[in-house]
Order: sequence, then C-alpha cells, then structure tokens
Amino acid sequence: MSGPVLADSVRLTDDAVEILDRRVYPFEVRWVRCATSEDVAVAIERMVTQSSGPLFATTAGLVLGAREARRDPPEEAAARLRAVGARLVATRPTNNHIRDAVHAVLSATVNADELAGNELVAAVEAAARAHDDGYRARSAALGEHAASLLADGTRVLTHCWADAYLIATVRAAQGAGKRLEFVCTETRPYLQGARLTAATLVEMGYRPTLIADGMVAAALSDGLADVALTAADRVTLDGHVINKVGTLGVALAAKAFGVPFYALVDAPDPQARTAADVVIERRDGDEVLHARGVRTAADGVIGYYPAFDVTPPDLVTRIVTERGVHHPKELS
Amino acid sequence: MSGPVLADSVRLTDDAVEILDRRVYPFEVRWVRCATSEDVAVAIERMVTQSSGPLFATTAGLVLGAREARRDPPEEAAARLRAVGARLVATRPTNNHIRDAVHAVLSATVNADELAGNELVAAVEAAARAHDDGYRARSAALGEHAASLLADGTRVLTHCWADAYLIATVRAAQGAGKRLEFVCTETRPYLQGARLTAATLVEMGYRPTLIADGMVAAALSDGLADVALTAADRVTLDGHVINKVGTLGVALAAKAFGVPFYALVDAPDPQARTAADVVIERRDGDEVLHARGVRTAADGVIGYYPAFDVTPPDLVTRIVTERGVHHPKELS
Repeated sequence: MSGPVLADSVRLTDDAVEILDRRVYPFEVRWVRCATSEDVAVAIERMVTQSSGPLFATTAGLVLGAREARRDPPEEAAARLRAVGARLVATRPTNNHIRDAVHAVLSATVNADELAGNELVAAVEAAARAHDDGYRARSAALGEHAASLLADGTRVLTHCWADAYLIATVRAAQGAGKRLEFVCTETRPYLQGARLTAATLVEMGYRPTLIADGMVAAALSDGLADVALTAADRVTLDGHVINKVGTLGVALAAKAFGVPFYALVDAPDPQARTAADVVIERRDGDEVLHARGVRTAADGVIGYYPAFDVTPPDLVTRIVTERGVHHPKELS
Repeated sequence: MSGPVLADSVRLTDDAVEILDRRVYPFEVRWVRCATSEDVAVAIERMVTQSSGPLFATTAGLVLGAREARRDPPEEAAARLRAVGARLVATRPTNNHIRDAVHAVLSATVNADELAGNELVAAVEAAARAHDDGYRARSAALGEHAASLLADGTRVLTHCWADAYLIATVRAAQGAGKRLEFVCTETRPYLQGARLTAATLVEMGYRPTLIADGMVAAALSDGLADVALTAADRVTLDGHVINKVGTLGVALAAKAFGVPFYALVDAPDPQARTAADVVIERRDGDEVLHARGVRTAADGVIGYYPAFDVTPPDLVTRIVTERGVHHPKELS
C-alpha cells in the first residue's frame, strides 16, 4: 500500500525486523535492524518506534522468536515463544496493543497446537500477518467513524502522534471530499507532534500549524480549532482515556472552551475496568532534559517523565472505536 | 547585592548597557553590549532579556538616550528622549513595565524641567536608579506577601521565569526558615523554566524537578505540587492575569485538581480595565520550530506563537502585589 512513510514502518525480512527509527524521523530516515527478538524488545523500550509501531514490531518480533525456536521440539519451542512474548509485553506497560498482539499470536499457534520447526514458523507468520491486517482493518473502520464527526472545513487540534488512527481518519475524510485543517502540539520531550504528525500530515497534503505544548489552552481559547482529537493508548471500560502525557491538559482546555474532545482507540480494554487497572509508565527523567540530543535544562535539576496521563470520562466528548462513536460512559 | 546571577543582569557602564543574554544562559554567560539606546531596543525585541529584565534595560536605555542627547538644547533633548522612550515602549507590548519605566523617568526629567547636557544626563541617571530601586523594593515587599502564603514544606509548581518576584519570594521564605520544593515547566520555545528558573533555584540551594509543559495537568493530578505560582506580565483591574503562554493551562489544571493558583505582580495596571485593553504579543512562529538552535519540526509546518495568554479571574486564587494578597475580583 502506498501512503505515508509511517503507515508502513516495521518490515519483516528473511533474517531480521527492520524498524524505522522514529526518534530521528523525518530528519533522518534510518532503519534499525533487529536480528533477534530481544533486539526488537530493546528497540521498543528505547522508543525506536511508538504509537501503533510496537504492535507491528511485536508480531514481527514473535516471528523472529519462532525462527529462533526452529530447531526446538514442540514443547521447548512453545516455552521459548512464550518467553519471547513475555519479554515483549514487559517492554512498555501502558498501551495494551503489545499484550493483545502476543496473546493473539500465541493463542493461534503454540497455545493451540503441537507445532515445531518450519510449521511453527509458518503458523506464527500467518498469525502475525492476520493480527497486523486485523489492526489495519480496525483502524480503517475507526477512521470512517471518526471522519463522520468532522464537518467539511473542521480545524482539528491533535496531540502527539495518533498514527494509524489519524491516517485512517484523514483518508476517510479525504474520501468523503472533506477539507480539514490541523493544529499539532510539538509533544515534548520526543517531539512526536512536531516530527511525526507534522511530517505525515504534510505528506498527506496539509500545511499544519505547530504550537508548543503550553499553547494548547491559548489556542483553544483563541478559537484556533473546532475539535480536539487524539489517539488513546488505552481506554478503560468506565471511559477513562489513557494517552500520551499532555492529553489531560488538552481535554481540560477543550472542556473549558467548549471544544469537543474525541479519543480514538480500536477497542476499549476489557481487562481494564478503570484507570487503577492500568500501569502508567514512568520513563527516565533525563529524557526531559534534552531536545534532539541537545541539553535543554540547567545542571542540578531532576527530570520527571510520566509518559502518559489519565483523562476522566467527564472530559471526553466521544470515544471512537472500530465499532462506532460512543459516549465514554456507555462503553461496557 | 550578591545573589543569583539573574538578579543583576543589566549593567550600565560609562559608554554602554551590557545585558546578560538570557537566550543562552546558563549554558553560556554572554553579555550583549548595547552602545546605543536603539541597540537596547533591539536587544529587548530579540529576547536577549525578558521577564524583569526589560524594565532595567529600559531605564538604562533611557540613560543612553540622555547621553546621546547631551549636546542638544533642552527642547531637542526632550524630543529625542521622548522618541527613545517611544521606541522602547514599542519593543514588546504585553508587559507594562517598559511603558511605566519610560513614563516614570520622563516625568521626572524632560517632562518636568528644561534640562540639557550633563544636567539632563544626571537627572535621567537618578530617575533611572530611583525607578530600579523602587521596583526592587516592590518586588521585595511582594516576596514577603507571597511567602506568607507558603507553609513550611510547600511544593511549588511554577511556569516560565518569575524573575525578581520569585527570587524575592524564595528569599522571604528562606528568611522565615521555611523549606520549599519546586517543580518547573521547561517553557517552550525559549526554555526559560528549564534554564533560567532551574538555574536560579539551583543557585539558591534547591534541586528542582523539571517537567515538560504538557505534563502540568498530570503533575497536579498526581499530587506533585501543593500550589501553582507564576508571575504576571500584566494584571487588569478586573483580575485577568496576562502571563507567559501556558499559564492558562496551569490555572485550568490547578482549578481542576484543587491546587491554589497564585499570580505575582508588583501592581495591577490602572490603565487596563480588562483583558481587551492589553495587546497580546504574537511572536514569529519560526521560534516554535527550534530548540536551542536545533530544528525540532518537520518541514512544511507553520509555527504559531502567542507569547502570552489570558487567565480569567475565576481561575486565579489570589493575586499577590507589593501591597499584599488580594482576591482577583477585589483589585480595584
């Protein structure tokens, strides 16, 4: 499928997984080669990829795991693949895509059958492909529902990088002939908004407005956008939206200035009844002290980096899933 | 007075004004030499100094203006000095310190007397010194009032760089034997929080926690701070707080999570009845596309940079001035 570079940024090859390095894109187009499933796990931990990327890296990493287990008898192969899955799940705890991808692939392969060798590899490859395709299909369906909320001419403020969901939403809106405009937050410390969202929207034909993260309230107060729209890394059954830190501030400002806030997720997590069931990843505080490798902070400070925040349902106008548009309190 | 570097960052010499370059401090300690009053105006426009700095740069720039007019007869000298004042006032519109400093110095000199030559220079020097001293005294008084709001052990979240007000508040708290802790926002795009606030608090004996601007709501939701406290560039008579962009988001989050928000200003502006009377400076959007000189944004985006935002009085717990602690709706 032709399309934005980031729509296809994990490649499974004959002997490796190649992952587009989102830490430097679009300034550099560098692919990180992961020769082992452990390399894939480390790449996810180090933010080589993020947003929808870890899902595809996980399924590809499981394929590497199956290849690594090619000479094992069925029971050992299954144990090894389960260990690979556990390692991948342990990389980043907040988004449930990794957990669900591991569960889907293992359920279809080692948990079900006594496979080994090339049969196991082929089965894992097929399950991985099916899971990837399923996610793409769910994202496309979600995009249609999200686009239905956006009237022709809508100015959309988005935070961080909503990846497959945003691409699908834009494609659906374009398919319906709707014009859109975009305001992106830069999304410190990794600048996903300034780099990934901005570059992809430019690829898709827009000229987005970029604001610093602290300008969201001013922008909404000034009437710069008609809707706020972000992805969600996880949505709980009671309607809490867990997403990139900063989303809570977007939602507070949207509420204060009468702008609807839409959160996009393929599906709520049936294993998360409420926010307390979700682990909020705290990353190394040193990541806050630099921008693109340049030191930004005075010596002697301590960085604090909660990678996600929790937006309560009363600040969320609608949650858009593959199934449709939902009120946050009517998810179950 | 010994103290933090930024407490004394504009120096009047025999033939120039030297201004500490806050765009690079503390990474570099570089003084920009302004040989003419026009150089001072350009330095203010280009953000060589900011926060309390332009007040001191203005009074010093007027001294240069008086020296430039040394050979003029009284009427021409007065006209020239008024032009210098108008030029300085035109540099940055949102904070009223420049306007008030020009008014104070001109009122005490060319507007009052038929001065020229060395007499005029001496009079402007005296008026400039008096205005500087007055501001320092008002800031010290404000600091005592602000410190009275901070119990021993208070954890203070602050945004951008509150300069003389923050230094005075910390000194007053230290004088009263109170321990404080600090959380600073980095304050993109110029990183005043990560650089100026952080470096000065480190100088004053603290180890501040640094967060990205998008983390304010998460930090307050997580209970990381007991109060939010910022300077105000301008406070209107009806209690609107105009301050560095991002302050509105801090105030919204503070309100949402039950944290008091205190704004510090030496005095409300009697010429600003309400927010519509204040010009909000919009700076060049390109400033949002870089961090410390490094490009942070993808090609093809347009930066948007409202340098200040407006916080309505219902989001402000108290306004602290040189006279005391006030409810925002009881300023007049």
